[in-house]
Amino acid sequence: MCQTRVLSVPSAKAHFEKTTIKRRELQPHDVLIDIKFSGICHSDIHSAHDEWGGGIFPMVPGHEIAGVVEAVGSEVTKFSIGDRVGVGCYVDSCGECEYCLRGEEQFCTKGFVATYNSRDYDGNPTYGGYSQKIVVKEGFVVHIPDSLELDVASPLLCAGITTYSPLKHWNAGPGKKVAILGMGGLGHMAIQYAHAMGAEVTVLSRSLNKKDEALSFGADHYFATSDPETFTELAGRFDLILNTVSANLDVDAYLSILSIDGTMVNVGAPSKPDQYNVFSLIMGRRSIAGSLVGGIRETQEMLDFSAEHGIAPQIEVIAADQVDEAYDRVLRSDVRYRFVIDVSTL
Amino acid sequence: MCQTRVLSVPSAKAHFEKTTIKRRELQPHDVLIDIKFSGICHSDIHSAHDEWGGGIFPMVPGHEIAGVVEAVGSEVTKFSIGDRVGVGCYVDSCGECEYCLRGEEQFCTKGFVATYNSRDYDGNPTYGGYSQKIVVKEGFVVHIPDSLELDVASPLLCAGITTYSPLKHWNAGPGKKVAILGMGGLGHMAIQYAHAMGAEVTVLSRSLNKKDEALSFGADHYFATSDPETFTELAGRFDLILNTVSANLDVDAYLSILSIDGTMVNVGAPSKPDQYNVFSLIMGRRSIAGSLVGGIRETQEMLDFSAEHGIAPQIEVIAADQVDEAYDRVLRSDVRYRFVIDVSTL
Repeated sequence: MCQTRVLSVPSAKAHFEKTTIKRRELQPHDVLIDIKFSGICHSDIHSAHDEWGGGIFPMVPGHEIAGVVEAVGSEVTKFSIGDRVGVGCYVDSCGECEYCLRGEEQFCTKGFVATYNSRDYDGNPTYGGYSQKIVVKEGFVVHIPDSLELDVASPLLCAGITTYSPLKHWNAGPGKKVAILGMGGLGHMAIQYAHAMGAEVTVLSRSLNKKDEALSFGADHYFATSDPETFTELAGRFDLILNTVSANLDVDAYLSILSIDGTMVNVGAPSKPDQYNVFSLIMGRRSIAGSLVGGIRETQEMLDFSAEHGIAPQIEVIAADQVDEAYDRVLRSDVRYRFVIDVSTL
Repeated sequence: MCQTRVLSVPSAKAHFEKTTIKRRELQPHDVLIDIKFSGICHSDIHSAHDEWGGGIFPMVPGHEIAGVVEAVGSEVTKFSIGDRVGVGCYVDSCGECEYCLRGEEQFCTKGFVATYNSRDYDGNPTYGGYSQKIVVKEGFVVHIPDSLELDVASPLLCAGITTYSPLKHWNAGPGKKVAILGMGGLGHMAIQYAHAMGAEVTVLSRSLNKKDEALSFGADHYFATSDPETFTELAGRFDLILNTVSANLDVDAYLSILSIDGTMVNVGAPSKPDQYNVFSLIMGRRSIAGSLVGGIRETQEMLDFSAEHGIAPQIEVIAADQVDEAYDRVLRSDVRYRFVIDVSTL
C-alpha cells in the first residue's frame, strides 16, 4: 500500500480538503501511475454535490487522468516505467461478458467499476484522479501519444471519448450534416472530431457569443438556439445532432431539425425526464438515442486520432487550492473550456 | 367524373351516412378501381372523431383498399382491366424529391397526399376507401398476389406495411430477439412478419388472454405487461421492440428490457407526449424511434412476402351499416383483429 495526497470532499457539497488515502499494493497486472494532471468534468460536480444520489464520502473525484508510469506489476506487458499514460471513467469490468470481450467495457453486464464514487469488485470504494498516485489494472490504462501534452491530454479521457465514440458510431463523416448542441467542455471537442471526420458541422448554442471560437475549432455554421428563426431555417437539416447539454430541452424542436432517418444522441443527462411527441419520431423515422463514453480500445483510438489530427481541448490549468472556485465557475459556464488541475500543486 | 356511393361522416363523431360523391375524370396515368373490401384502421376512428385536429368534413375514411381495376387511363402501363389491386395510406407525392426518387414516398419533402382527410395538390379534398369506386394514380396502386383473397389483403395496405417496414428497416431476422408490444390489428401482423423473417418473437400484451393466439401466429414467448415481474425477467433482452400501442406507456420500463444498442420503434402515436429518462438511453446506447407506413415499392414487396409466407390478418367482415358499431367495438378492443367492410353492401 502507498499513501498518496488527494483532494477530497468529506460530504456532499462540502469544500475540498487536502488529505491522504492509501492505494492498494501493486498486483501482478497493476500499474502505479504518478498523476500529473486531472481534468474537471461537470459530472465531478454532480457527484461531489451528490445530485445523482448514492454518493460515497469522503469522495476523491476525477476521471480525466494523465500521468507517468512509476511502477508496474510482475505480469504487466503493455506498459513500462516512464510511459505517458491516461485513465478515464472506469478502472475495471468483468472481462468475460460479450461486451467486455468485444471491447465495449462501458456496457459490461456485471457493471464496470467507475474510477471514483464506486466500489471495486471487493467492495472497496474507488478514489479518482484529484490525487498524486493511482493504481489501475493495465487493461484500463491507455497510452498518451508523444505529441499530446499531458495537460491537454487529460480531458480527452472523458470529454474526448464521450464525443468521439457517438460520432464514430453514428457515422459522422463526409456528406453528413452534424449539429453539435452546446459548446462547453464536451461540445468544443465534438466540433473538432466531427470536422476531422469530414462532416459538415453546425454548432447550436444559446447565444452567438462563442461563434468565432466555434469556427476556429472547425465548425462550418453556427446558430443561436435562443432565436426561434433558427428552428425554421434548419428544419429537416441534420443527419445527426450530438446533444452535449445536461438540461431539459424542447426535444420536439430539435427533432424537427433532423432529416429523415436522423438521430439525436444525448451524452448529457438532465436530472428530470425529457418529453417528446411520438409524431416527431414517426413522421421522419427519426431516433433519440444515448451514448456512454467508449470502450478502452476506442479510447486509445481516440487518443491516436487526436494526436494525428492535432485535436486538443482548450484548457485552463489551475492549482489544487482553486478547485472550489473552479466548480463555481463551471456552474456559471465561466470556463473555456476545461479546467485541469496541476497535481504537482497538491 | 363518376358518381360513387360512400360511407361518410358529416362532422366529427357523427354517425356514418350512405351518400354519394364524385370521383375525378380518369387522367392518363389514373386507374379506376372497383373497391371490394376496405379495412377499418384505428386511425380512421381518430380521424372521424377529429382527435388529431384539422379534420375535413364530410369525411370518407379508409386507407386499406382492395379491389379490381375497372378502367385505366391512356398512359397506364402497370395495370390492366381486371387486375386485383390495393391502395394504402397515400395516393400522391411530388415524385421529384430525394425520398420519392428512392421509393420512400411516405417521406416526400412536399408532403404526400393522404388517401382521405387530406387535399390533393390542386386543393381538392380526398375521400377514402369506404366507397365503391376510387380513382388513383397508377404509381400509388399495388398488385395483390393471386393467392391472397381481397378481404384479407385489404388490411395489409396499412396494418401490414406499418409493421413490415420497421421490422425490415431495423433488421428483424435470425439471431434477433424482437418484442411485439400490443396485440391488436398491427400487433398480430407484426408477430407473423417477425417470425417469417426468422427472429425470435416475444409478445408483450396487457394480460395473458391472447397467449394461445399469439403462439399460433408464430410467437415464441408471451408475457403480460400487467405483471411487474415481466420487466425483471426480461431485463436487457430485446434487440428491437415494435410498439404498436397508441397510448402513453412507461417508456423507461420498456427501455430497460432492451439490450445494449437496442431500439424501441413506435408505430402508434398517443395524443399526449411520452416521457423518458435520458439515462435509460445513455446506459445502453439505446434508441427510441418511430416509423411511418412504407414506400410503394416496399408495400408491393410486403404483399409478395405475405403471399409467399402465407401471412394474413385475422379479420371479421362486416356490412356497411355495421361500421358505427365496429368503431365502438374497436374502442373496446373487442375485435380479433381487424374489421373489413364488404363494400358490396354499400
